[in-house]
Amino acid sequence: MDAPLHYLAGAAAIDSLPLAAVVGVARVIEIRNPEMVTRGELLPHDIQPGERLLFKTGNSEHCWDSEDFCADYVYVGLDAARYLADKAVRVVGVDYLSVGGFKQDGPETHRILLEAGIWIIEGLDLRGVDPGSYELICLPLKVLGGDGAPARAVVRRIR
Amino acid sequence: MDAPLHYLAGAAAIDSLPLAAVVGVARVIEIRNPEMVTRGELLPHDIQPGERLLFKTGNSEHCWDSEDFCADYVYVGLDAARYLADKAVRVVGVDYLSVGGFKQDGPETHRILLEAGIWIIEGLDLRGVDPGSYELICLPLKVLGGDGAPARAVVRRIR
Repeated sequence: MDAPLHYLAGAAAIDSLPLAAVVGVARVIEIRNPEMVTRGELLPHDIQPGERLLFKTGNSEHCWDSEDFCADYVYVGLDAARYLADKAVRVVGVDYLSVGGFKQDGPETHRILLEAGIWIIEGLDLRGVDPGSYELICLPLKVLGGDGAPARAVVRRIR
Repeated sequence: MDAPLHYLAGAAAIDSLPLAAVVGVARVIEIRNPEMVTRGELLPHDIQPGERLLFKTGNSEHCWDSEDFCADYVYVGLDAARYLADKAVRVVGVDYLSVGGFKQDGPETHRILLEAGIWIIEGLDLRGVDPGSYELICLPLKVLGGDGAPARAVVRRIR
């Protein structure tokens, strides 16, 4: 997980993460764009303030089964990041190693989300998870002053 | 958390932990003995097979507020460890750094529990947790082949 401090000097560290941000209902949204998450693809999903969103992209199919680093992973584009910031979602999770692109938009996407107080979960293995609503439980290590921390995250069906 | 591999060569590593072992109803039991958890003190608690048990000892009051290492922490004594193994509980959690004593019974207590297939959670901060039943969520990092892993653990009231 990335805390605001990951990109913003003096901002909140991972030990100040409210557990309510990462424990609760989350929505897994399927992303079809093979390059990036775009505002246009998010629009029909009626995203609400405070939502926890996990994006299941082509990364789930293409990246996790490879031993090699997947440099062309699908990331959250700038217009999508701004849209999510405007919507004031609570958490954004992605199914590969960074929420920003490896070749472009990496720092900018992080900054837009983190400045909006959105907590970032990276590296989710969503291969076995269909789109829909779940209970998310993501518990990062409580690293004092850390700009981020490794976390174990699970989803379970809502009973 | 300690996996069986922590003391038993060739035994299960932490990446094989079934999440059902550490996510579900758990019972916080108050321990009054100031030296160790004993079989005698556990007897009245009607411990059942498969239970997740977290022991709240004097450690919660005496050890966590100190900057110094608390060498005389309350641990799980050998007779209690054998009793828990006989009862086939699923998880044992303790409120300081080791389930076994620092000065005695450390390895033996671990071995008895781990040989019985009991997963061990150490280092729980139970200061704010009253005895009773809760939902436990303890998610260790999935360290491949690890004999243990750091974990974040929370309890919440059962609704």
